[in-house]
Amino acid sequence: MTNPTACLLIIGNEVLSGRTQDANLKFLATRLGEIGIPLREARVIPDVPEVIVTTVNEVRARYTHVFTTGGIGPTHDDITAECIAMAFGVPWEQHPEAMRLMAAHYASGEPPTEFNAARQRMATMPRGATLIPNPVSVAPGFTIGNVHVMAGVPRIMQAMFEQLAPGLQGGVPVKSRAVHATGMLEGRIAEGLGQIQARFPNLDIGSYPYYREQGGGVALVAKGTDQAEIDAAVEAITAFIQGLGFTPVAGEPI
Amino acid sequence: MTNPTACLLIIGNEVLSGRTQDANLKFLATRLGEIGIPLREARVIPDVPEVIVTTVNEVRARYTHVFTTGGIGPTHDDITAECIAMAFGVPWEQHPEAMRLMAAHYASGEPPTEFNAARQRMATMPRGATLIPNPVSVAPGFTIGNVHVMAGVPRIMQAMFEQLAPGLQGGVPVKSRAVHATGMLEGRIAEGLGQIQARFPNLDIGSYPYYREQGGGVALVAKGTDQAEIDAAVEAITAFIQGLGFTPVAGEPI
Repeated sequence: MTNPTACLLIIGNEVLSGRTQDANLKFLATRLGEIGIPLREARVIPDVPEVIVTTVNEVRARYTHVFTTGGIGPTHDDITAECIAMAFGVPWEQHPEAMRLMAAHYASGEPPTEFNAARQRMATMPRGATLIPNPVSVAPGFTIGNVHVMAGVPRIMQAMFEQLAPGLQGGVPVKSRAVHATGMLEGRIAEGLGQIQARFPNLDIGSYPYYREQGGGVALVAKGTDQAEIDAAVEAITAFIQGLGFTPVAGEPI
Repeated sequence: MTNPTACLLIIGNEVLSGRTQDANLKFLATRLGEIGIPLREARVIPDVPEVIVTTVNEVRARYTHVFTTGGIGPTHDDITAECIAMAFGVPWEQHPEAMRLMAAHYASGEPPTEFNAARQRMATMPRGATLIPNPVSVAPGFTIGNVHVMAGVPRIMQAMFEQLAPGLQGGVPVKSRAVHATGMLEGRIAEGLGQIQARFPNLDIGSYPYYREQGGGVALVAKGTDQAEIDAAVEAITAFIQGLGFTPVAGEPI
């Protein structure tokens, strides 16, 4: 069985201008791997309608799932929902359930907050969307087709994803095991490591140099869906670097 | 005059699996904005040859400059240089100057290090490439056409970029000014802010909620190439939020 695949679209000028450090990619990549829907690509794109529409249509045809983060707030630069409607060729209209949820929320404040036009925009969605509940700040995300539209604020995005995850048809979880050795250099192990990779074609064996005050080294990571294969590869790697005179340590460097 | 544009390709399974937090996008986005080559898109793609080749050819046709990070070390998973050669349809061969530099480096160690086949791979580049010097660890990056190939390790990538930057034909620097107010809510300011954005069509006015222990709020950022316009927009924004009873503070929240 082949695992389903995922693509992440990070929508926002603030990430492309360097103002904001994205924190959503790492979280989603990790969680999607755990449920067997590995992330195959991520794109950071600006708040430009044509770019959003074209990109969404391109990637939703290519991947099993598309996740978007950003652009679903109440301000003029929040245009994701509108653009997703354009991409799907459906009207962008008030979602009755989202309207109800949000109206109740604003009415229940002490004092009540006005559910004004800007806030109602957050309940305006492509026709046919189903809501992704937002346990943090009420305004929901939504799913339409294979596209899941979430907030950009990491805490809210993470809460939305955990609402969504149980309903996603996952695949075989992607697992990994690491071993590292301080004082090791990639140029010294490259040839032997390549031979080990060749023996385990179903795994991805990665080599990642690290730098620490106490001395740098290399971390080697075997990644795949078959735990026995991963274990065998890590044993082979461990024996190999031991044979070169280095001291392998299980896991990633601290 | 229209500014040149840039696209960043982050090449590496380790970013897509969630193992590694990318730190290159924010740096490059900021520096490219400063020299007037704004970043228009970034993509994170895996160490898969067809994907790298197709993506490079797609984006190098679309943007003035393409920057890549990752995949130029000595191990089997470092395939960027080879794939760039394929994308340009040129041979992947030893680069005489890179070979000379690296041979001298390894020979000068105490004791000398073997300049083995794996290390020589780091001097193997698309025909016609010009070197990007690496003041940190010698093994150079390279430029071919409008594609600039750099290391993935942030310290090395940053050093390479600073070698490259003076030779890039920059445009008008992108500047920004921010103002923020604690206690402010996006839903309250959205309408008025949209009107200010409409008055300054050459600027990007962004609205970014923030969360702090001392209380959250919203930061408003005006971005563009004309300082006088930016200043006028920030004045308008400041007056607007003051009028709503909030206390505007210059700059981003700490």
